[in-house]
Amino acid sequence: MRKPPRILDAQTIAKTRLFHVEQMDLEFSNGVIVQYERLKGSSRGAVLAVPMLDADTVLLIREYAAGVQRYELALPKGRIEPGEDLLEAANRELAEEVGYAARKLRHITSLTVAPGYLSHTTHVVLAEDLYPSKSIGDEPEEIEVVPWRLSRLGELLECEDCTEARSIAALFMVRELLRDDN
Amino acid sequence: MRKPPRILDAQTIAKTRLFHVEQMDLEFSNGVIVQYERLKGSSRGAVLAVPMLDADTVLLIREYAAGVQRYELALPKGRIEPGEDLLEAANRELAEEVGYAARKLRHITSLTVAPGYLSHTTHVVLAEDLYPSKSIGDEPEEIEVVPWRLSRLGELLECEDCTEARSIAALFMVRELLRDDN
Repeated sequence: MRKPPRILDAQTIAKTRLFHVEQMDLEFSNGVIVQYERLKGSSRGAVLAVPMLDADTVLLIREYAAGVQRYELALPKGRIEPGEDLLEAANRELAEEVGYAARKLRHITSLTVAPGYLSHTTHVVLAEDLYPSKSIGDEPEEIEVVPWRLSRLGELLECEDCTEARSIAALFMVRELLRDDN
Repeated sequence: MRKPPRILDAQTIAKTRLFHVEQMDLEFSNGVIVQYERLKGSSRGAVLAVPMLDADTVLLIREYAAGVQRYELALPKGRIEPGEDLLEAANRELAEEVGYAARKLRHITSLTVAPGYLSHTTHVVLAEDLYPSKSIGDEPEEIEVVPWRLSRLGELLECEDCTEARSIAALFMVRELLRDDN
């Protein structure tokens, strides 16, 4: 394994309510020095839940996505709050966004979003044995819940509003995992 | 389909070499007004190439990822430059990062990274019929090229340095597409 670059300098160059931009001077093992910028995310990270209503039916949500300024069909996700572990965070997001909680939760992988310039990590949690449990989150409007069959994943990927890479990766991984389980 | 929120106000609140933070006041169709922040990416977007050396072997790269401060194993990608179309951009990135160009290129899907707060879109390009073609990009050190068999995708996902959601989603999608082709 290659020796990672040495961080010669790192400083915050912009900070807003949501974003924290850090500028870094890095020296690679060959002596080349480059200036990089990255966004620092929460060190706790985020969770993405894959709620299975039954062995084939996953519950997606259609929610307004301010980054791309349209509604997006994807898995429920959100930040881990202080004091929560990642399974607790997944179950809270589920109750807020989907109206269910899960008796069986397992962390199946952790994904990065854009590791070249974001520090963010998203932990993928498979949620099974669901039961109705609704709590109020900070959503500005009611979220539409869309059941979808994993056996029809190909059709989902043809929907114009289903584009989010973490959700797509997680759906494929869960489909494989559940096949292996059975 | 729900009516998307009305943008009451949008302004730049931070701008660095790489990042452009926009603050927006949005009024949802139920009258609720919320303030959002998002990152604006290049309107041209980025490309992610899936270079197939043969029907089962994809060429990955292991490159330093400043966002997470470690080497990451993923598909080659980069921004679309002014005047390029997305297939040209994919072929240029391939030559710079992998040392190949492709005679056969097709756009198979477009992914978003974090649509809740990033405007970024990444176009996935399947690259086949490769031939050696090396050009010099802006990389600070030589990039390690790692051939991997799609038939062993499960083992790849167990590697600690393979976490990038767009690459994982694209590999699953290409594996399905190539199965359907044959």
